[in-house]
Amino acid sequence: MAIGGAEDKKGDKRILKRFVDEAGGPESTVVVFPTASEQKEAGPMYARLFDSLEVNEIHVVDLVDRQTALDQEDRVVELLEQCTGIFFAGGNQLRLTTLLGGTRILTALRRRHAEGVIVAGTSAGAALLSEHMIAFGESGLTPGHGKVTLVPGMGLTNKVIVDQHFRQRDRLGRLVSALAYNPFPVGLGVDEDTAAILDAADRIHVVGKRSVVVLDANRSPFTNADSVVGSTPFAMFGITLHVLTEGCVFELETRRALAPPPGGAAPIVDDE
Amino acid sequence: MAIGGAEDKKGDKRILKRFVDEAGGPESTVVVFPTASEQKEAGPMYARLFDSLEVNEIHVVDLVDRQTALDQEDRVVELLEQCTGIFFAGGNQLRLTTLLGGTRILTALRRRHAEGVIVAGTSAGAALLSEHMIAFGESGLTPGHGKVTLVPGMGLTNKVIVDQHFRQRDRLGRLVSALAYNPFPVGLGVDEDTAAILDAADRIHVVGKRSVVVLDANRSPFTNADSVVGSTPFAMFGITLHVLTEGCVFELETRRALAPPPGGAAPIVDDE
Repeated sequence: MAIGGAEDKKGDKRILKRFVDEAGGPESTVVVFPTASEQKEAGPMYARLFDSLEVNEIHVVDLVDRQTALDQEDRVVELLEQCTGIFFAGGNQLRLTTLLGGTRILTALRRRHAEGVIVAGTSAGAALLSEHMIAFGESGLTPGHGKVTLVPGMGLTNKVIVDQHFRQRDRLGRLVSALAYNPFPVGLGVDEDTAAILDAADRIHVVGKRSVVVLDANRSPFTNADSVVGSTPFAMFGITLHVLTEGCVFELETRRALAPPPGGAAPIVDDE
Repeated sequence: MAIGGAEDKKGDKRILKRFVDEAGGPESTVVVFPTASEQKEAGPMYARLFDSLEVNEIHVVDLVDRQTALDQEDRVVELLEQCTGIFFAGGNQLRLTTLLGGTRILTALRRRHAEGVIVAGTSAGAALLSEHMIAFGESGLTPGHGKVTLVPGMGLTNKVIVDQHFRQRDRLGRLVSALAYNPFPVGLGVDEDTAAILDAADRIHVVGKRSVVVLDANRSPFTNADSVVGSTPFAMFGITLHVLTEGCVFELETRRALAPPPGGAAPIVDDE
């Protein structure tokens, strides 16, 4: 579940509530990682929010540096084994990968995810979820070398690349750059207070107030990303762009966007 | 010729030079409209720039209000009849349409354009060129009602809608909104120091340092822009997105993007 940041925390908390529902509602045990944020309040704030949504048990795992992460591996892995939902707060996604990359914590997390436990991240936490993570990049329209820096992320799926805060600054160029290098993954631009939920059937569901942009470059007939050098921008033709709002679904298998069913009921997320 | 703003004025002046070449080079007579800008320097600055590019004759037509435009109709129409190139500076595109809309100046301008005279605009001047002009709108990723305000523009073509300064703020949502209402035109997002030149064969050529994004919603299978109300965002599927760099061409007739020919020579603009 990739949240574009700035999810509602005061109104109906639609996105956070959906996370809690998927985690098991009143039977849920949630582990919160506020590690991406340098701010001490992130952990307690999400603990209070999940408490107000009647989560059964909440554990905040605040790992301040890599040594702490290594020292606490056993304890955190045990928490992950017992939880029903995992949540990553926002901040700096490189702080998360540098602290947690290669630890048994991430191995356990991937295993729990494969077993059907929901893993959510907001803002930097959303960027982190995929195999190929956008660490940073330049704003702007035009793709080019140096526009985007991809690093290994948490690795829950290699089928999407998430760009968060897509709305704040024009990040089209950096997402197209990432896809030009290898059009296999689908690019997801997630707007604020909106979430993309990837289910076990590889379908992306949209929840929230705004939209998710899907960039599918699978059928692109041309890019010159392999031949341009230096700061010369590169071209890319034939990317398919879908703007999905709540209730819309994108099937990764068929690369088709599906309209909300009549009546507007959001389709059910399968845990297969 | 739609220029995305901030065209180079100190280096090789590639974009402005291309405009002058198309206008006839050393035989050219150029009319400059600095009307969109409230700044007094815009007119003299472009006069100096075109002088440095060896334009034969330069006329700056600075119309400060609508009454002046009406009073000077005859003089300006006569200048337009004799010119070989017309250039609109940046500023506020609504200032241009409110001052010039319905005057014989714009009628003469459309006639001269149909006769093959190049009409260029930078920034607000670029937005102005098409039949449907984006007057203003909200930044952001997500399309919706109120996201974009379309007004009648100069009317040189109804086949494209230009959004300028596409790079400065995320304007994807407003351009998609415009296309959702009627997917007939192609959306052009023109980056700074870059230009899209529409030739007489309805082919778009790209010149400059960055890129032009083409959004083609012609084959889009779904939008709910007709049924959503209020501030609910709308969805739109299956827009084709092309990122074009210098030398690339987009054919409006076939809706195909063409790669630069081998050797990288920019294709010739036909004046049919």
